[in-house]
Amino acid sequence: MQLGIVGLGRMGGNIARRLMRHGHLPVVHDRNGAAIDALVIDGARGAQSLEAMVSLLDKPRAVWVMLPAGEATEQTIAQLADLLEADDVIIDGGNSLYKDDIRRADTLATRQLHYIDVGTSGGVWGLERGYCMMIGGETAIVERLEPLFVALAPGVGDIPRTEGRNGTLGRAEQGYIHAGPAGAGHYVKMIHNGIEYGLMQAYAEGFDLLKSKASAALPAEQRFDLDLAEIAEVWRRGSVVTSWLLDLTANALVSDPQLDSFSSAVADSGEGRWTIDAAVEQAVPVPVLSSALFARFRSRQPQGTYADKLLSAMRFGFGGHSEKFE
Amino acid sequence: MQLGIVGLGRMGGNIARRLMRHGHLPVVHDRNGAAIDALVIDGARGAQSLEAMVSLLDKPRAVWVMLPAGEATEQTIAQLADLLEADDVIIDGGNSLYKDDIRRADTLATRQLHYIDVGTSGGVWGLERGYCMMIGGETAIVERLEPLFVALAPGVGDIPRTEGRNGTLGRAEQGYIHAGPAGAGHYVKMIHNGIEYGLMQAYAEGFDLLKSKASAALPAEQRFDLDLAEIAEVWRRGSVVTSWLLDLTANALVSDPQLDSFSSAVADSGEGRWTIDAAVEQAVPVPVLSSALFARFRSRQPQGTYADKLLSAMRFGFGGHSEKFE
Amino acid sequence: MQLGIVGLGRMGGNIARRLMRHGHLPVVHDRNGAAIDALVIDGARGAQSLEAMVSLLDKPRAVWVMLPAGEATEQTIAQLADLLEADDVIIDGGNSLYKDDIRRADTLATRQLHYIDVGTSGGVWGLERGYCMMIGGETAIVERLEPLFVALAPGVGDIPRTEGRNGTLGRAEQGYIHAGPAGAGHYVKMIHNGIEYGLMQAYAEGFDLLKSKASAALPAEQRFDLDLAEIAEVWRRGSVVTSWLLDLTANALVSDPQLDSFSSAVADSGEGRWTIDAAVEQAVPVPVLSSALFARFRSRQPQGTYADKLLSAMRFGFGGHSEKFE
Amino acid sequence: MQLGIVGLGRMGGNIARRLMRHGHLPVVHDRNGAAIDALVIDGARGAQSLEAMVSLLDKPRAVWVMLPAGEATEQTIAQLADLLEADDVIIDGGNSLYKDDIRRADTLATRQLHYIDVGTSGGVWGLERGYCMMIGGETAIVERLEPLFVALAPGVGDIPRTEGRNGTLGRAEQGYIHAGPAGAGHYVKMIHNGIEYGLMQAYAEGFDLLKSKASAALPAEQRFDLDLAEIAEVWRRGSVVTSWLLDLTANALVSDPQLDSFSSAVADSGEGRWTIDAAVEQAVPVPVLSSALFARFRSRQPQGTYADKLLSAMRFGFGGHSEKFE
Repeated sequence: MQLGIVGLGRMGGNIARRLMRHGHLPVVHDRNGAAIDALVIDGARGAQSLEAMVSLLDKPRAVWVMLPAGEATEQTIAQLADLLEADDVIIDGGNSLYKDDIRRADTLATRQLHYIDVGTSGGVWGLERGYCMMIGGETAIVERLEPLFVALAPGVGDIPRTEGRNGTLGRAEQGYIHAGPAGAGHYVKMIHNGIEYGLMQAYAEGFDLLKSKASAALPAEQRFDLDLAEIAEVWRRGSVVTSWLLDLTANALVSDPQLDSFSSAVADSGEGRWTIDAAVEQAVPVPVLSSALFARFRSRQPQGTYADKLLSAMRFGFGGHSEKFE
Repeated sequence: MQLGIVGLGRMGGNIARRLMRHGHLPVVHDRNGAAIDALVIDGARGAQSLEAMVSLLDKPRAVWVMLPAGEATEQTIAQLADLLEADDVIIDGGNSLYKDDIRRADTLATRQLHYIDVGTSGGVWGLERGYCMMIGGETAIVERLEPLFVALAPGVGDIPRTEGRNGTLGRAEQGYIHAGPAGAGHYVKMIHNGIEYGLMQAYAEGFDLLKSKASAALPAEQRFDLDLAEIAEVWRRGSVVTSWLLDLTANALVSDPQLDSFSSAVADSGEGRWTIDAAVEQAVPVPVLSSALFARFRSRQPQGTYADKLLSAMRFGFGGHSEKFE
Repeated sequence: MQLGIVGLGRMGGNIARRLMRHGHLPVVHDRNGAAIDALVIDGARGAQSLEAMVSLLDKPRAVWVMLPAGEATEQTIAQLADLLEADDVIIDGGNSLYKDDIRRADTLATRQLHYIDVGTSGGVWGLERGYCMMIGGETAIVERLEPLFVALAPGVGDIPRTEGRNGTLGRAEQGYIHAGPAGAGHYVKMIHNGIEYGLMQAYAEGFDLLKSKASAALPAEQRFDLDLAEIAEVWRRGSVVTSWLLDLTANALVSDPQLDSFSSAVADSGEGRWTIDAAVEQAVPVPVLSSALFARFRSRQPQGTYADKLLSAMRFGFGGHSEKFE
Repeated sequence: MQLGIVGLGRMGGNIARRLMRHGHLPVVHDRNGAAIDALVIDGARGAQSLEAMVSLLDKPRAVWVMLPAGEATEQTIAQLADLLEADDVIIDGGNSLYKDDIRRADTLATRQLHYIDVGTSGGVWGLERGYCMMIGGETAIVERLEPLFVALAPGVGDIPRTEGRNGTLGRAEQGYIHAGPAGAGHYVKMIHNGIEYGLMQAYAEGFDLLKSKASAALPAEQRFDLDLAEIAEVWRRGSVVTSWLLDLTANALVSDPQLDSFSSAVADSGEGRWTIDAAVEQAVPVPVLSSALFARFRSRQPQGTYADKLLSAMRFGFGGHSEKFE
């Protein structure tokens, strides 16, 4: 099956490759010609412009946009809308805010164009491992594109079946779902990333407590010099905290137990932030998800925060020059 | 290899069974005679008293205490200390506070007795899946007991090897570690449980955000009626948040999507609490782990907290009878 | 000085009254005729419609809108914009989102109308105590309206002068500030309310810890049956936690030490939520302000949350029917 | 009335001075002879040793220990216990853990000695402003010492009476309370300090949000360059967030708006930590009080935490070398 793909970064390029492995026919475009060339060598059809891409696709067309959320995605979708024809489909596989999806789907519908949002998890591992996809949009269109989703999804693999599931394997068991109307795919992906932040911070705090147990600030007889790589490894087997993130932790700790090669300034992305906005909007308490985001904000202020200085200023205020008051 | 086991609840009984499957020889005791009988039927040797158990074991003896942390464990260890002889070993496989381990090991050492603490994860799944064990105590004694740990541990299984690990499989890859001196095993297990609380709460908040997206409080066009069982299922494949806890979530949601059969009052145990105490003692910020514990505290106050009432009282104070002030 | 006032609720009505006490001339309107009548009895000039109000005001006019944020305020401002003439001023004294102020000021500027946002703190106490005002908008217009702000503000009172302040009393020392351009007033007021939530929750948690110290769950010798009203009272004198919110707490505890007459379901308003949105947007960690908001969200779910049930479901999953696993 | 005072630091010295101003007769001791000399010049009677102090006091004696919590206090109390006689009183005015008070009172009671714990708030301001005192111990002994408490307390001052209080002024209205048996005084003071941390952090986060609103990271039209000193000042009048801590903030911002002269590494003390331990023990959710403590822990790690590095390591693990994956 044909698919136009715009944006051949790490994600877009590998999506094209995985589709080809399953016999599909990507037509690829990127602002960077070299990225197109690389895919052409791998067997894809290259398009030097959106116009060229559209002309190379049979109707009804489908174009997968895999660009950074925000301006890049917004503009590309607007350009495609002008080039495509009734019943064609635009797919946003990036990390757009779901409210943008709802708006876009409404706008495109007035032009008889279809819009599908696909929350895509998998990263650099996706080419081999497959992409976990959460899809929003019209049912008929999701069904039309289904062969592509089947190819991109991880498939059933050797993961034990969930208790209580019987009969034919459903979409979810193959690694993709039709979550709901436009926006639902990105909404689910957004929450996925919010949870991801929380899980990561839980491990991070726990390993900090393991590390700090060797601190010279503790009485000698209370200190343990723990082997964190061994601990991560042992938890991979039979423990309650087994997970893929723990696997990654175990990988990292084998090669660099002190983690000195890693930055202590941790980035965050739109989805982590929007999760908190959604919680505020929906009046759902999310102390863990918000704490995880705030820890990242704080990590990027090595000079200390204005808040911290104000604490010191107040302490000085009630305690005098010594700052020793209680 | 022989092993005395005191306490034949869900954990102790299955530990005895798993040992027998691997050819070891448990001598078992419980206050409840029926629990002894059940194990005897399964092939264990029963002892009606601690004295009987000690007499049935060859020297140097090893006795695994698998009782609730606190008084029950404390008293049993004290009784065993009076019955055992130089070079015998007492193993605490329960969830004791690691500071108690340090104290006990010191006390027992004055009587030439050895003390081993084993943080044991695995629960009802352990019999089949094996127990992930974090062990504290003297190296020579850990080595003496190694055949038991090998039998109880999950073993390598089909879990992919961690990148960077080569050569002979280490203990951790078989599912147990010697974490350090007395107390180190329970310390690591304690942090394991602290992390577990954080992970669970991250999922819980995320699924709450998925559920609440169908709330009538939202504008109709912003609502999604999401299928949470399908979402949990799809995340099991190729996503960043894949974990055993997610597998359990997927199980639960298949059979009861509204979770109406589950209590909203959530228990907590010593280890979750002690993790926070350790963080306070070690000056490690743990916003996620503490938030997870506090959510459980809060869950058990359906009548509302005194804190909440005080908020209302203050609002009344500055806003007048209407409570509508801003 | 004349001032049109739209919205004669608790806040708007008392603002009119306080202005009259200082010799100003409010022209008042409300959808509810009785509210107009009550003010007319007190000496204000009544207007049965916005048109009437505008015709009763001398040019350049100023109209203070004191309505709930959102639709009510938005529509009234739109109507006024159609009625007013070049150089007239619309003042939003409610709790609008500051981004709405920026937008409105831009829109009104195209019609030669001025827009002033006033964050107004004071509640039912404002009539006597004065209103603390944080003002955004053009400097010339703030100066034009200054007599009104002076009348409404608390004034210097008997509050000790801040160290390092000399010479003439500034606006802030009289209880109002020109915070910056349009939106700045409401931004400052929004943060004010965010802080308010944090302060309230700090007291609430502390008093909960005082109350719970009498709990039967503690060992008898560790219990204290503390007199919370006495504690609140003593902290009003010479302690670090002295504040107006503590004064209100002391009031409440004298009359109802168990706080049984107060709801444990605590409302929140836009400003508390927007503060968190601002923190997310500005990448500022706000664990205390967010925790305070989430506590209110949680307080309104007496049936327990879906999150809590999911925790129980997971516990059941790894612990078996007993839910006793660790 | 006579009072022995051990420990003539900022607190102990000023307590002696305030007592003298009210006609009492302190007998003072410190390890540092110069500290004794300074008080003697001010009119106190100096004692070069605890023995000398005891011999200079009439029976029944009272000795106020004003030393750092922990070893210093513990040892001094032990020494005094050996020197004092039946019916004498030891007062711990420092910041001891209340559980230590309970233990000490029990021990001293076996020797017919009395023990009083006094949580003392006031700091460098106490000499002039008076000390807010929370007292634990036997009723008869509190009454015996009452003249001292009256002298040290702030007194009624010009603080408006709490609504609903009538008749004779109670102890609380004069600035001290008898909170309960031994330990109750320090328990209440501990919670006081816990609340203090929460209040401080609420202001700190709020002012951080005011400051960051000028950040170049925001779109120019969304930026406000706010005058934080003016904001703190205006909130002192008629606003809901008026407090003594806000007064101190206003002081600090006048002289150093950027707070550059203040450290961003913020200390914490035992009482802030013990408050969290108490919450864990009493199963009370304290998200705000714990967040405030954790912010201080974090502030003292300018190099970043191990937790942060682990987050980066995981991000690298799933995102590849670019760390750009989502």
